[in-house]
This record gives sequence, C-alpha cells and structure tokens, in this order.
Amino acid sequence: MTTGPAMRPDWIAVDWGTSHCRAWAMTATGSHLAHARSDRGMGTLTRDDYPQALLDLVGPWLSDRPLRAMVCGMAGSRQGWVEAPYTAVPCRPDALTTVNAPMADPRLSVTVIGGVRQNKPADVMRGEETQIAGFLQKNQGFDGVLCLPGTHSKWVQVSAGEIVSFRTFMTGEIFALLADRSVLRHTLDQEWDEAAFRDALSEAISRPETVAHRLFSIRAESLLSDLAPGAARARLSGLLIGMELAAARAYWLGQQVAVIGSAGPAQHYHTALSEQGLTPIQTDGDAMTLAGLFAAYKTQKATV
Amino acid sequence: MTTGPAMRPDWIAVDWGTSHCRAWAMTATGSHLAHARSDRGMGTLTRDDYPQALLDLVGPWLSDRPLRAMVCGMAGSRQGWVEAPYTAVPCRPDALTTVNAPMADPRLSVTVIGGVRQNKPADVMRGEETQIAGFLQKNQGFDGVLCLPGTHSKWVQVSAGEIVSFRTFMTGEIFALLADRSVLRHTLDQEWDEAAFRDALSEAISRPETVAHRLFSIRAESLLSDLAPGAARARLSGLLIGMELAAARAYWLGQQVAVIGSAGPAQHYHTALSEQGLTPIQTDGDAMTLAGLFAAYKTQKATV
Repeated sequence: MTTGPAMRPDWIAVDWGTSHCRAWAMTATGSHLAHARSDRGMGTLTRDDYPQALLDLVGPWLSDRPLRAMVCGMAGSRQGWVEAPYTAVPCRPDALTTVNAPMADPRLSVTVIGGVRQNKPADVMRGEETQIAGFLQKNQGFDGVLCLPGTHSKWVQVSAGEIVSFRTFMTGEIFALLADRSVLRHTLDQEWDEAAFRDALSEAISRPETVAHRLFSIRAESLLSDLAPGAARARLSGLLIGMELAAARAYWLGQQVAVIGSAGPAQHYHTALSEQGLTPIQTDGDAMTLAGLFAAYKTQKATV
Repeated sequence: MTTGPAMRPDWIAVDWGTSHCRAWAMTATGSHLAHARSDRGMGTLTRDDYPQALLDLVGPWLSDRPLRAMVCGMAGSRQGWVEAPYTAVPCRPDALTTVNAPMADPRLSVTVIGGVRQNKPADVMRGEETQIAGFLQKNQGFDGVLCLPGTHSKWVQVSAGEIVSFRTFMTGEIFALLADRSVLRHTLDQEWDEAAFRDALSEAISRPETVAHRLFSIRAESLLSDLAPGAARARLSGLLIGMELAAARAYWLGQQVAVIGSAGPAQHYHTALSEQGLTPIQTDGDAMTLAGLFAAYKTQKATV
C-alpha cells in the first residue's frame, strides 16, 4: 500500500468478494493512487463487521473531506453488508440499482452496486456486472460474448450496451476442491504441462461425458506409471475447462469473444478458445473492475 | 460389539479402508459372531501404527489359540501396512496375490489381499476385488457387469469367473465435496425429493455436457425462487449419477447388471438403472466383503 501526505484521493473503489476485500484510492479522473487488500471477505463477516473492516483497510486514505466508496461484489448479497437487489436481464450494466450501506463514520459514504439476475434458466451475478460495465465503457459498441473466468466463471451475451443472457459454471471452485481436497491432491504438483492441458481440453470438448471417468485416470496413471511433472494439474484443468466449453458452445461458437482477465485461469481460457479457431480479445480484470466502479461513481455523483 | 467367554472365532475378517477399519469375528463356516469398527483408517495411520490399531479393535476376541486375520482394502496400498501388489486384468478375483503383514503378537497372523490393476485405460481397485470374489462365490456362472457405488464407484465387466475390465468414477467423492464444501452447501438440506432426482438423472444421461452449468443452477434457483425441500440434494445426486451413467453406458447397455450394496447411494444407482429399463440384481455390500474374505481365508488355509 502506498500512502503519504501528498495522497488526496477523490473517491474509493471497493471489490468485496467472498474471500477477499480489495480497495483502491482513486482520483477524480479514474486513476488509482494506492491499493489495499485484506482477507476479510463476505464469508468471514457478519453484517455489523463491515464498517470497521472497511475503515481498517482504507483508514490511512481518509481526511476531513468526506469521500464516497463505491462497492461491488458479494457485500451486496443477502448475507452481506446490505442487500442490493438484482436487476433482471436484459439490462444495462451501467444503470443498476444501488443501495447506501450504513456507515457511522462521517468521513465515508458507502454505495453498494446491485447484481444481475436471469429468471430462466435461473442465474445470478454479483461483481461481474461491474467488470462488464467497465468493458463496455472502454469498448463502446461491442456486440458479442464476454467470458469471465473465476471461481464461478460466467459467459455473458452482450448487445446494444445490454446484458442479454448469461450462464455460470462452477469450474474454478470444482478445480480447487479436486486439486486440494480430493484423492487427486496426492498426484498434483505445482508444475504445468501445456501439451497435457491441450490434449485433455480437446478430448473434453469433443466428448464431455468422458470427463467423469478421466478424472480418476489421473490418479490411476500416477500410481501405475510416471506422469510427467505438471501433467496431472494441467490435465485436470483441461478436462474441466473443456467440459465447460462444450456446455457453453452456444455462447462462443462463431462469436466475437472477449476474455476478462489476463493471468492464471484466464490465460487457459484464452488458449482454449484460440484452439477452437477463435481470436478472443484479452483484457485486464482489475482494470475493468475499476472502470466499472468509476462509471458508477460518476453516475452517483451526477445524481446526488 | 458382542463378546463373551462363549465366543470362539476361528478367524478374523478385516476391511481396512481410507477412513475406517472394520473387523468381524468369524466362524469356520463363514458366519460372523461379532463386529467392531474404528475410524483409524489408512488416512490416519503410519506403517508402524497398524499392528496396535488392529489389536485395539480385535483384542477382546483373542485367546491363546493363534488366529489368522484376512485383510482387504487400502491397508495393502503403498502408503498402507504392507504393499500387496496389484494383479493385472484379466484375472480371477479369488486368486490374487496375498502378502503377510508384520505382526509381533503371536496370537495373530495377518494376510493382506492385493488389488487389481488395468493398464489401459489406467485404473486400479483395492477392496472391491474382494466384494467381487464374494459375489462370484454366491452367484457362480454370473456373466455380466457389477456396479459398486462408493466414494469411487466402479463398473466391472465379469466373464468366466474373471474380472475382464473396469472403470472408476469419482462421483461419490465429488458429491461429498460439492455438498459439504462448495457454495451449494448453503442450499442443500437433509431431505430427499425423489422426483427431482429422477428429473436430473434423466437430463444428465441424455445431455451429460449440461451438468457443468446445471450445478450452479441449483444455487441460483434457491436464491431466486423457493426450491422444494430435498430438491437441491436430490438434483445434485441425479446430475452426478446421470453423468456417470452416460459415461459408463458401454458397461450397462443391454447387460445383466448387479449393484453391490443396498443402502444410500446404491439404492439411487438401482433406481437409475431401473429407469433405463434394466432389472439390476441388488446385493448386500458387507455380505459380499465377508464372502470374499472367507474364500480367501479358505484358499490361504489350504495353502499353508
């Protein structure tokens, strides 16, 4: 975290997820001066814990001049700080319901951005809508599909500035559970075998039903022969992402696709889509979050 | 546990898995006089812990007359008590390699039964081979497929008294991880909605690739509408078992199938196969384990 007497933020951007809270000290033009994060995510907090958790994180940035904090993510869920209602698709991600959260400290006003719902098939998002708003801010007129990898990855059809439909996959969470807590944990190392990833991906996309037994094969092969370093982790990832791509085919086939995120899993989704003959746009996830929060901040300021 | 001065077992049957150790005091004719179990499974023990862990469990059954304990399961793995090598398919499950485990107490001799391997596609089993031997002992001449539900379920093709091929699915372990540790845990109650199970099953068998996004739908529907009690748990189970059945189709389609086990998940596999038009045989899992250990005990006795 960078702080100092010279730092005078105009507002504060906050992405408050299940496992972490991340905050940025922002200028009036949408640049960030400092960043702070803590592991006090929604999963660890009761409703009354939120004000102090935020003050602990951004306190060094505060002065006599009151600042507004724009918050996206799980802090707006029913189990969060304050429930910020879902808006149903189709909807503009830059014009969602916002709710003010209770904050006794006069130096901070807190606005929480609501999520997006889809009634049929039932689906929800919280946090991604802000990244989508940021992406559309920076890519005006974009018409196509956004892929947002993560614990729960999303495929989102966007047209005429609106979120039209979307679909959520638990791929990231299932990968973590299998890698860290299943019998496969004895077999995975920290390496990455790109060829093994591509082979597993290709097989899972063309025959997704086989994933159910290919998973245990990773363990069996490691017992009966020597798997190359990184082969187990890459194969597990390839099988799960391949299965997701098979189920999401209607979203990406023949479409202009942008992958939000540039490191880790997002890189693997980029590879996977490229293997299918697409040329996906790749963007930085944090930059989209900040652009989306900045757009919401400006709207909020114009309204007040 | 039933003990008393009148109880004189002739040998001891032991099923030593990853999470539990279960033992039975057995007669010369294969009946059991008493049962004991502990949670000192392979996962909690180092190699040197095994002798005392077994003595703690079966000590009350011992006298001056030395007894033999026949052991199946993970105690025979590389990380277990003593490594009992795998035999490659095709093989008779009643004629597998056995290994004596080190035991200083003269009242017990311990024999561990080895598992079965398949080189291509790579697969392994430990413990199930003994249930299969028991099943074939009680159903001589059986030609068809055995389904063994469990943490790692197995589909096993049996012909002419031999295990011909088999395939392992992590369905039970994935169910437990998703039900207890994923975001779905907020949605599952302890009820069971049989109609929801059958619907999910049918959908997953016919369109297995959709399972990847149907999982999160369970969560989203519970947030956006009221799921009936038991619907979430039953749907999760139906999706995962349906995906397994889709991948195992070559094993059961048009085959005589026997499900080893009668309670819990085994009942759901029985339902699932019946829904597909089969009339599976259903058997008791423990009875098959004891019959298999009894067959191994008699072979061992004849050899010594």
